[in-house]
Amino acid sequence: MLKTLKAFTQQAKENKTRTIAVVAANDNHVLQAIKKATEEEIIKPLLFGKKEAIQQICAQIKFSIPEESIIDVLNDKEAANQAVKSIYDGKADILMKGLISTGSFLKAVINKEYGLLSGGLLSHVAFFESPYYHKICCITDAAMNVAPDFKDKQGILNNAINAYHSLGISNPKVAVLAAVETLNPKMEATVHAAMLNTMGNRKQIKGCTIDGPLALDNAISKKAAQLKGIDSEVAGDADILLVPEINTGNVLYKSLNFLGGAKSAALIMGAKAPIVLTSRADNEDTKFYSIALAAAMK
Amino acid sequence: MLKTLKAFTQQAKENKTRTIAVVAANDNHVLQAIKKATEEEIIKPLLFGKKEAIQQICAQIKFSIPEESIIDVLNDKEAANQAVKSIYDGKADILMKGLISTGSFLKAVINKEYGLLSGGLLSHVAFFESPYYHKICCITDAAMNVAPDFKDKQGILNNAINAYHSLGISNPKVAVLAAVETLNPKMEATVHAAMLNTMGNRKQIKGCTIDGPLALDNAISKKAAQLKGIDSEVAGDADILLVPEINTGNVLYKSLNFLGGAKSAALIMGAKAPIVLTSRADNEDTKFYSIALAAAMK
Repeated sequence: MLKTLKAFTQQAKENKTRTIAVVAANDNHVLQAIKKATEEEIIKPLLFGKKEAIQQICAQIKFSIPEESIIDVLNDKEAANQAVKSIYDGKADILMKGLISTGSFLKAVINKEYGLLSGGLLSHVAFFESPYYHKICCITDAAMNVAPDFKDKQGILNNAINAYHSLGISNPKVAVLAAVETLNPKMEATVHAAMLNTMGNRKQIKGCTIDGPLALDNAISKKAAQLKGIDSEVAGDADILLVPEINTGNVLYKSLNFLGGAKSAALIMGAKAPIVLTSRADNEDTKFYSIALAAAMK
Repeated sequence: MLKTLKAFTQQAKENKTRTIAVVAANDNHVLQAIKKATEEEIIKPLLFGKKEAIQQICAQIKFSIPEESIIDVLNDKEAANQAVKSIYDGKADILMKGLISTGSFLKAVINKEYGLLSGGLLSHVAFFESPYYHKICCITDAAMNVAPDFKDKQGILNNAINAYHSLGISNPKVAVLAAVETLNPKMEATVHAAMLNTMGNRKQIKGCTIDGPLALDNAISKKAAQLKGIDSEVAGDADILLVPEINTGNVLYKSLNFLGGAKSAALIMGAKAPIVLTSRADNEDTKFYSIALAAAMK
């Protein structure tokens, strides 16, 4: 069981050190996180961008990095392409976005020649350590897929399950969230939950225990589930919270971060390598733990 | 500015004492909350239900109540009908649900003869006191309207604005929530936000300041809003968080209660009187503060 985000750091240390390819690394906050992760010996950095700009920030933050770890490129596009290619060629294991727009970054990720798509969809998985819950839980998808249909939702769930398996947890408990814990044909979230339940029971989806619909309280509180008379292995002990759509996921993600005293780490899953795509709004800890999370995966 | 839920108690004490009509009052938790509110002198109870059952619980919890405050009825349906009629007839000011199904309760509320509909829709408003926010904020609609269309959303917003006005706050700040803070034609929540913005600017909606789309972080954190370069009077200081649909509202409501250390009070608005409709899952405090909230309204 994962109890804290620090467990990612521990697990990463036990793995062979991963190389992280950073696109447009000339960003103070990103380099601070890379510095910390390098010092903790959980990654080796490979920085793509304007060499001079990167070296200048490294000097400022007292991050001494061998010259050969910085790949000088003409522009952001080239930084993205070369970093992605370094993963494709097996020279790096993790991709990270620096000071480049998400659009330009993802364009390189999905390019047809040496891109990192692996057949499934890309999705966002966010891991939370909350002072009000007994273990790490994962919310998906809070940031990437705008209006997932049922097939997309399977892909989103699949990526989260893969993330757990990569972290050595073989049978995560999946709560399919809705506003209620009963089936209501007028509420699509509850219908999708019923469909996923059956797919879980029939082993169309493997490597996890699925239950839904569950409202958030039932998913994370045994007491709340008991009050509603819900008999479920998942209720009160969920690992993965599968949200119906992006508004729900995003509000939950931000509620925990801004109104819940939680710490978080997040990745894009579904590509050939884990992708660290934190935003400017994320704090230092989130950036560091997201790198540690990627490096902790088998 | 409302800073804590306790402010409702204070405000209720300054008002003329309201009479609360409780439907099927033979519920231990409901009577505990009614006892506390009676002792705080913010309400006068009028209890509809099986007299003997009510008296038995009152004895258990040491709640001495005059016999004429208990109206003996044959069954739950009769309790609901008579309680609703007592509001209609001006004998009570607040309606509260006890040990009766929500469906049966609301059936009486909307009856055509002496029901409490007033032209608009009924909606749920939840007020939160969070240790991570500088004032009370209101989430709507987290529990009642399953799939609100744009017109319903206006009704939901209107009810929340009325709630604030009734509490003496003349110009609440409304954040129209979405997963992002920019317009995306593919994301209905952002389109609805743009429409509500314009209605606010053109005074089609009055008595509030509207801005959206805002992601939750921008709505409640000035710092997060600044990081995104958002220049808005509402950002970081929202009173009302208007959510796109019930899944988003419900997850936010429950996240604050179960994963955010928040306290809450909730009402159904839009009827001729405020309605306290708490659920079994709500704790004692929530029940009490919901009564205080209703009694605090002008």
